[in-house]
Amino acid sequence: MEKPIVGIIMGSDSDLNIMKDAAEVLEEFGVPYELTIVSAHRTPERMFEYARTAHARGIEVIIAGAGGAAHLPGMTASITPLPVIGVPIKSSSLEGLDSLLSIVQMPKGVPVATVAINNAKNAGLLAVSILSVKYPELREKLIKYKEDMRRDVIKKAQDLED
Amino acid sequence: MEKPIVGIIMGSDSDLNIMKDAAEVLEEFGVPYELTIVSAHRTPERMFEYARTAHARGIEVIIAGAGGAAHLPGMTASITPLPVIGVPIKSSSLEGLDSLLSIVQMPKGVPVATVAINNAKNAGLLAVSILSVKYPELREKLIKYKEDMRRDVIKKAQDLED
Amino acid sequence: MEKPIVGIIMGSDSDLNIMKDAAEVLEEFGVPYELTIVSAHRTPERMFEYARTAHARGIEVIIAGAGGAAHLPGMTASITPLPVIGVPIKSSSLEGLDSLLSIVQMPKGVPVATVAINNAKNAGLLAVSILSVKYPELREKLIKYKEDMRRDVIKKAQDLED
Amino acid sequence: MEKPIVGIIMGSDSDLNIMKDAAEVLEEFGVPYELTIVSAHRTPERMFEYARTAHARGIEVIIAGAGGAAHLPGMTASITPLPVIGVPIKSSSLEGLDSLLSIVQMPKGVPVATVAINNAKNAGLLAVSILSVKYPELREKLIKYKEDMRRDVIKKAQDLED
Amino acid sequence: MEKPIVGIIMGSDSDLNIMKDAAEVLEEFGVPYELTIVSAHRTPERMFEYARTAHARGIEVIIAGAGGAAHLPGMTASITPLPVIGVPIKSSSLEGLDSLLSIVQMPKGVPVATVAINNAKNAGLLAVSILSVKYPELREKLIKYKEDMRRDVIKKAQDLED
Amino acid sequence: MEKPIVGIIMGSDSDLNIMKDAAEVLEEFGVPYELTIVSAHRTPERMFEYARTAHARGIEVIIAGAGGAAHLPGMTASITPLPVIGVPIKSSSLEGLDSLLSIVQMPKGVPVATVAINNAKNAGLLAVSILSVKYPELREKLIKYKEDMRRDVIKKAQDLED
Amino acid sequence: MEKPIVGIIMGSDSDLNIMKDAAEVLEEFGVPYELTIVSAHRTPERMFEYARTAHARGIEVIIAGAGGAAHLPGMTASITPLPVIGVPIKSSSLEGLDSLLSIVQMPKGVPVATVAINNAKNAGLLAVSILSVKYPELREKLIKYKEDMRRDVIKKAQDLED
Amino acid sequence: MEKPIVGIIMGSDSDLNIMKDAAEVLEEFGVPYELTIVSAHRTPERMFEYARTAHARGIEVIIAGAGGAAHLPGMTASITPLPVIGVPIKSSSLEGLDSLLSIVQMPKGVPVATVAINNAKNAGLLAVSILSVKYPELREKLIKYKEDMRRDVIKKAQDLED
Repeated sequence: MEKPIVGIIMGSDSDLNIMKDAAEVLEEFGVPYELTIVSAHRTPERMFEYARTAHARGIEVIIAGAGGAAHLPGMTASITPLPVIGVPIKSSSLEGLDSLLSIVQMPKGVPVATVAINNAKNAGLLAVSILSVKYPELREKLIKYKEDMRRDVIKKAQDLED
Repeated sequence: MEKPIVGIIMGSDSDLNIMKDAAEVLEEFGVPYELTIVSAHRTPERMFEYARTAHARGIEVIIAGAGGAAHLPGMTASITPLPVIGVPIKSSSLEGLDSLLSIVQMPKGVPVATVAINNAKNAGLLAVSILSVKYPELREKLIKYKEDMRRDVIKKAQDLED
Repeated sequence: MEKPIVGIIMGSDSDLNIMKDAAEVLEEFGVPYELTIVSAHRTPERMFEYARTAHARGIEVIIAGAGGAAHLPGMTASITPLPVIGVPIKSSSLEGLDSLLSIVQMPKGVPVATVAINNAKNAGLLAVSILSVKYPELREKLIKYKEDMRRDVIKKAQDLED
Repeated sequence: MEKPIVGIIMGSDSDLNIMKDAAEVLEEFGVPYELTIVSAHRTPERMFEYARTAHARGIEVIIAGAGGAAHLPGMTASITPLPVIGVPIKSSSLEGLDSLLSIVQMPKGVPVATVAINNAKNAGLLAVSILSVKYPELREKLIKYKEDMRRDVIKKAQDLED
Repeated sequence: MEKPIVGIIMGSDSDLNIMKDAAEVLEEFGVPYELTIVSAHRTPERMFEYARTAHARGIEVIIAGAGGAAHLPGMTASITPLPVIGVPIKSSSLEGLDSLLSIVQMPKGVPVATVAINNAKNAGLLAVSILSVKYPELREKLIKYKEDMRRDVIKKAQDLED
Repeated sequence: MEKPIVGIIMGSDSDLNIMKDAAEVLEEFGVPYELTIVSAHRTPERMFEYARTAHARGIEVIIAGAGGAAHLPGMTASITPLPVIGVPIKSSSLEGLDSLLSIVQMPKGVPVATVAINNAKNAGLLAVSILSVKYPELREKLIKYKEDMRRDVIKKAQDLED
Repeated sequence: MEKPIVGIIMGSDSDLNIMKDAAEVLEEFGVPYELTIVSAHRTPERMFEYARTAHARGIEVIIAGAGGAAHLPGMTASITPLPVIGVPIKSSSLEGLDSLLSIVQMPKGVPVATVAINNAKNAGLLAVSILSVKYPELREKLIKYKEDMRRDVIKKAQDLED
Repeated sequence: MEKPIVGIIMGSDSDLNIMKDAAEVLEEFGVPYELTIVSAHRTPERMFEYARTAHARGIEVIIAGAGGAAHLPGMTASITPLPVIGVPIKSSSLEGLDSLLSIVQMPKGVPVATVAINNAKNAGLLAVSILSVKYPELREKLIKYKEDMRRDVIKKAQDLED
């Protein structure tokens, strides 16, 4: 298998149900990725190690999903020079507002590129879009992807109008 | 002047006070940028034109700031294949919550890389980080930037402890 | 069929379940309408085209429903001179607060006539009320509609009291 | 003076500071209006009378502003067949969220066309847009108004770019 | 049957499921009541009539339940000199926050005695407590009611500890 | 001086600035009251003693104001059989939402008659309204008070219209 | 049985489903505890007695769970010199936000050590951590517990990666 | 100077204005402490080192203050076996709600003892209370502290009543 250039990490295996959407997008675009569990709170050294070494291992973008007091994306971003995309995962209370604010409200100096609550698919697309800065073939695929979305909507509109 | 590779746009000249922080970061990292006003609501054609042509003009990342029902980042992202960073600008009510949700809660298919409310500095840093995927010298600068932040904190800690 | 004077648009076919309530009201009042899918984010050109040409085609009021970072009503309003009614659709997180704020908090210059979350029925009634400014028979029907609502409540009150 | 066709009402004279923006827009568009204080809570009979007789007096659209537990727009809408535009006025707590929810979350059967918190200007513009369904000259003026906004933004953009 | 001294009103028969808890408490305390549907928005005249005449008919306390943009308690309070207890009913969005704020955030001059979301039982108890100012036997019953609650908790505590 | 029948208590002397509005209303209506500081958290025994003995001392209604995790109204209500009116006082964060929810969201069995944030004036008026169940002269005064409010609004409306 | 050093109290037997998680943690760490129902609102004297005597009976930490206008943790903390841990229990409205704010937003002078909504397990762990200040064997167990969590995550990560 | 047993850390020197309140309480109780800046995001290694070695250096309780996406308390708690007290610091948006949720909503396994927004004084008092489990003289001082608070309130109440 090709060497992964996107790292997908999540705080718990219970987040896999959501985070697999990011992986599926990357597969669709032919972007090699790795996917694993890295918990900021239960495996802080592992998180450190992951974030510190990711770019040296060839990772170019990190996608991190977490819920509640979601520290994984922000802590990863504090350590790596890579762009970090954060996916707020809706937990059992507060409708995901805690996850969203814990990820997006980062202080000056350490950004996390936050997407919508539970929207790991968009995290995958954002990773593709970031990589397309470097890899022109991904930009072509993104333009085609948008065109396909457009066609899909127009097809549904026609079905509805008929 | 070198050709800009980051486009900073904002919905109103009243947002300049916040959005200039993004420009300052880009200058600090030596990243050429352009900065202008593009209102999704008052100049929709201009927004369309800007978003549709940006990548052909050499822009590689777009930073868009807006407040209230903030549609500029999301609409720009719907048109361009480039990564779009959204800056929620705090308006006169609701403490910026409206701006944040209008920007971050994008539907599947069209991500916006959202940063914290009013945190245009982080938008600039995220742009640098995205560009560093392609430009290795920016990664080196980012690593140095993080090191400088670290030293600055340690210096302040020492001052405080003394 | 008579030429439609109300255009009902929605961002996705999954919104149809809610938005059909608007259509039912218009049918009840004998107001000809059209209904289709127009996504601000997946078909921005289509949205532009729809909004730019609607009044020339004889549409007099537009009803637009969308959820999450709901940009369809506001963007449509930015392009058309017609009154635009926005229906915030409750999405899977945040209880519809994101949809509501994305639609109602429009900046000065571009209003959207926002109704309650998921309340497409009221969007239909508001369209009728707006049209009644021009068409006196609709005002008569609205007065009768209110009278029917009144009677219905009084009937239920009597059933309960008995 | 020409007979008013828009009625602007507000719950308290302290709301005048905000609500005058609606009046200014109507003046700008040459739409005759009346403006007065009608409190749902302190003058309920007056509110009833106002709402019940407005359309017979020639009023075609009502704009109602109120804050806190803001009942004026919804109660007016429950009585009149006219379209009612609600302006949530930010009060001293909760950042205007109470005003917004009290106005927008109307039950099925009685819509209020709600605009953004404190955005009485947009209430004025929405009234013009509603009236333009009947009065073609207002539509022309609205199209020109949008064009002026566009030019104003482009002028500011050019100033900024220079 | 004895003449009712508490009036329980609600905006819709769908609220009965909640509001019956208030009736049950009043029955338990032997307080005669009436219960009916009075919609501020669909039967405004009926609401007016109800609120204006209640005290003359011998009603001493009014309990009003409503959801969403809940205007029934506040409007009733604006008309009657009687104490009005408001019950915010949780509707299908926003977890009842809209109902709560629409009822509790009344302007100076017109209070509504608001209880917890969906807590019609407490509305009944508050009515009893208000009436106990006048009827000493109700105070005795309230003291006994509190004592029974106390015993019930202690019994459960003992069961749990065993 | 006449024996007080309303007890106004507050958690801190910093609340006096708000709570004095309740006292002023009572004075206006000629209702004798007492006013003191009783902190649920700093003087729990005092609170207990106050709540347990109030009705025996002739107090008929208690008004309690507190901010933040505002426990004074609810704890007082748990002890006394008297009706307790709660005034949520806006503290330095969260716009008073914490105070409101801590007071209004009481469990089944122990109601607090909650008024709007910082609206101690309405607490005074609600106390008068409760007492008017027993004292007919207060009802007359309330009816007159409402009439005065009405006249005041109409006067202001006339000034504005002129 | 060994004398309990942790007291777990809750406002209602319906909270047991959540609060038992605290008990399970204490059992796992071999910390003797007692568990009972103490309602601030329905058994205020019992709460007083419990809080006043706990430290004399050998209790060293109190864990208190409650929902809605949750006063049990704060009131207990106002009486006892022991550290009090508060567990906000999610009730039927507002997603637990009311419970959280009622417990955490304590005024200066009386802290409650608040954990996440419904997270009684963490209340148990926090109690162990507090006790470990005095009992070195608990610190050893906590270090081992963290190590076990770490291993568990790494095991799951390996399963996922395979 | 005596060896510190409490470590006060904060993410930025701008938090000192708030966090000094914790230090003042510890001084008042004669508890030796250290105070420094440790930023989770700008000095992650320093945070790691601090958290990993604190207990070996004799620290028995850690107080950590941070704002926005406040990760310092939770990350520290993930590494140290010591009890960690979190102080949510109100930042420039969202009234401190982001800080509160980022600190309190920790996942199962890693508690943070959270106090009220900006309430560093209570963090100091909670630390004293935790230490009093081990140091009996602190419990005596706490009992006296509560007694002093009580007297202070009663004194103010008497001044007010006079």
